Amino acid sequence: MIRTDEKSPKQKQNIKFDLNSYLKEHQELVEVALDKSIIPAKPEKIYEAMRYSLLAGGKRLRPILCLASCKLMGGTLSMAMPTACALEMIHTMSLIHDDLPAMDNDDYRRGKLTNHKVYGDDIAILAGDGLLAYAFEYVATETKDVPTDRLIKVIAKLGRTVGPAGLVGGQVLDLESEGRTDITAEVLSFIHTHKTGALLETSVVSGAILAGASEDDIAKLSKYAQNIGLAFQIVDDILDITATDEQLGKTAGKDLVAQKATYPSIWGLEKSQEQAQNLINDAMAQLESYGKNADPLIAIAEFIVTRNH
Amino acid sequence: MIRTDEKSPKQKQNIKFDLNSYLKEHQELVEVALDKSIIPAKPEKIYEAMRYSLLAGGKRLRPILCLASCKLMGGTLSMAMPTACALEMIHTMSLIHDDLPAMDNDDYRRGKLTNHKVYGDDIAILAGDGLLAYAFEYVATETKDVPTDRLIKVIAKLGRTVGPAGLVGGQVLDLESEGRTDITAEVLSFIHTHKTGALLETSVVSGAILAGASEDDIAKLSKYAQNIGLAFQIVDDILDITATDEQLGKTAGKDLVAQKATYPSIWGLEKSQEQAQNLINDAMAQLESYGKNADPLIAIAEFIVTRNH
Repeated sequence: MIRTDEKSPKQKQNIKFDLNSYLKEHQELVEVALDKSIIPAKPEKIYEAMRYSLLAGGKRLRPILCLASCKLMGGTLSMAMPTACALEMIHTMSLIHDDLPAMDNDDYRRGKLTNHKVYGDDIAILAGDGLLAYAFEYVATETKDVPTDRLIKVIAKLGRTVGPAGLVGGQVLDLESEGRTDITAEVLSFIHTHKTGALLETSVVSGAILAGASEDDIAKLSKYAQNIGLAFQIVDDILDITATDEQLGKTAGKDLVAQKATYPSIWGLEKSQEQAQNLINDAMAQLESYGKNADPLIAIAEFIVTRNH
Repeated sequence: MIRTDEKSPKQKQNIKFDLNSYLKEHQELVEVALDKSIIPAKPEKIYEAMRYSLLAGGKRLRPILCLASCKLMGGTLSMAMPTACALEMIHTMSLIHDDLPAMDNDDYRRGKLTNHKVYGDDIAILAGDGLLAYAFEYVATETKDVPTDRLIKVIAKLGRTVGPAGLVGGQVLDLESEGRTDITAEVLSFIHTHKTGALLETSVVSGAILAGASEDDIAKLSKYAQNIGLAFQIVDDILDITATDEQLGKTAGKDLVAQKATYPSIWGLEKSQEQAQNLINDAMAQLESYGKNADPLIAIAEFIVTRNH
């Protein structure tokens, strides 16, 4: 007989929860929903360009966080699925625009040619605009069985997350910081809380809002999400140094070449790894009161520090 | 004693309504509201870029149509003002992105340097993204005294109007048509109903939705708006040929040089003028049942065919 009581309660929990199956199952649900979300029409080229980037794979972390959070707060997957899709549309839009020659000038993304390399800069700009606008339309028209006041809160939060107080603001500071060697950890933190963190936080919190979570629960989930967001970025910076092109699906070492300020460049590799782990521990602590129901979010937090791509 | 009964009822009505004062008064209200809508924060450059184009003047036709329609349907100006501002944010975003070198490559707009000429292509792309996202946030957070189900309808309609079924779709077909000499009136109509017409229609209809208008009233206002939208574009094409640079605040004759298909190039000047007038007459007929309350919308329709800039 295996004496499982030798393990701590948390370890026991994690052994039982199969994150790979969970992610695979939910990724498949998200892929099906995304594929159905944009139905090609005229002019075909723009629908094709939007679908090209939206359906280019990826971890679908934002949709899955939204679905998991909604479920944890007593909601259903179907209540959250339109918002989950909208989060991925917004994420995709930000990638398409960031990759443009006028911005980061990237030719590859997830191992595939970037949108503008396939469709041209003009269509890539419009595909991003189209995805952003459609994300709001999609949440507003496709969400069922959710009171409209919750939906308005989700829409307000999505808007704030993309605008100058979110993704756009973060990208501006990122562009301004490029090539500068005097970037502090504070500036880097501003960039990432806006550019990456805001959308991850909104992914988790919007799921909770849709389910009708209390302010107290939303605050805990928000803290959880902020922590995993920052840890996610630190690990991204670490992987840019330690991983291969193949693992990343994009050019490794690009930050170093572009003289981009990163956490390892400020703190060194070891301290960066330590900070990421501390953030994740603190994120998991936020979810203690939910017991086993929080298994998916706990496991996702752990996955963020242990992933290799 | 002046025998006013010699004039038709409609002519009497229009003599009494002072459109210039109406437009001036409402333009001022909109300018104040727009100025307050975006409060500069960090990073300053993006707020500055967004405000530069949003506060660059213009007729503010879309916000005024929204306010007028809301009022006609029994609502108040304050119910519609956040949506009115959002419509102008969306319109401004589409102008900023259309002016980019990757698209129409325009250096001047409303007599001022275009956004990317002042701030660079990267910031101009982000300023457009920021305005678009903020428009949705603004409607969702700032609209007071309107039931949330109406607000969701307005947000869905705004999203649809910008996306591939609206502005973005129209711009794609416009780009594809440039330099081609075989453009039919049907293709031109598709471009304009999507690129110009959709947002004008949404301006009018969203005001009506906010006021809680019936389906029947919304249908009449939608028809009114579709007609003035198409007439507006026909007149724009005519003015590109007949007006001066100074009147337009941009380069006149640009469509001819760019070999752009226009209504005059397909129909000739005279038939274009006639078609615009027919559309306006039909638009005004939609509003007959509302009597004097429809004066602002009637006068705006007349203004569209008689304007010289």
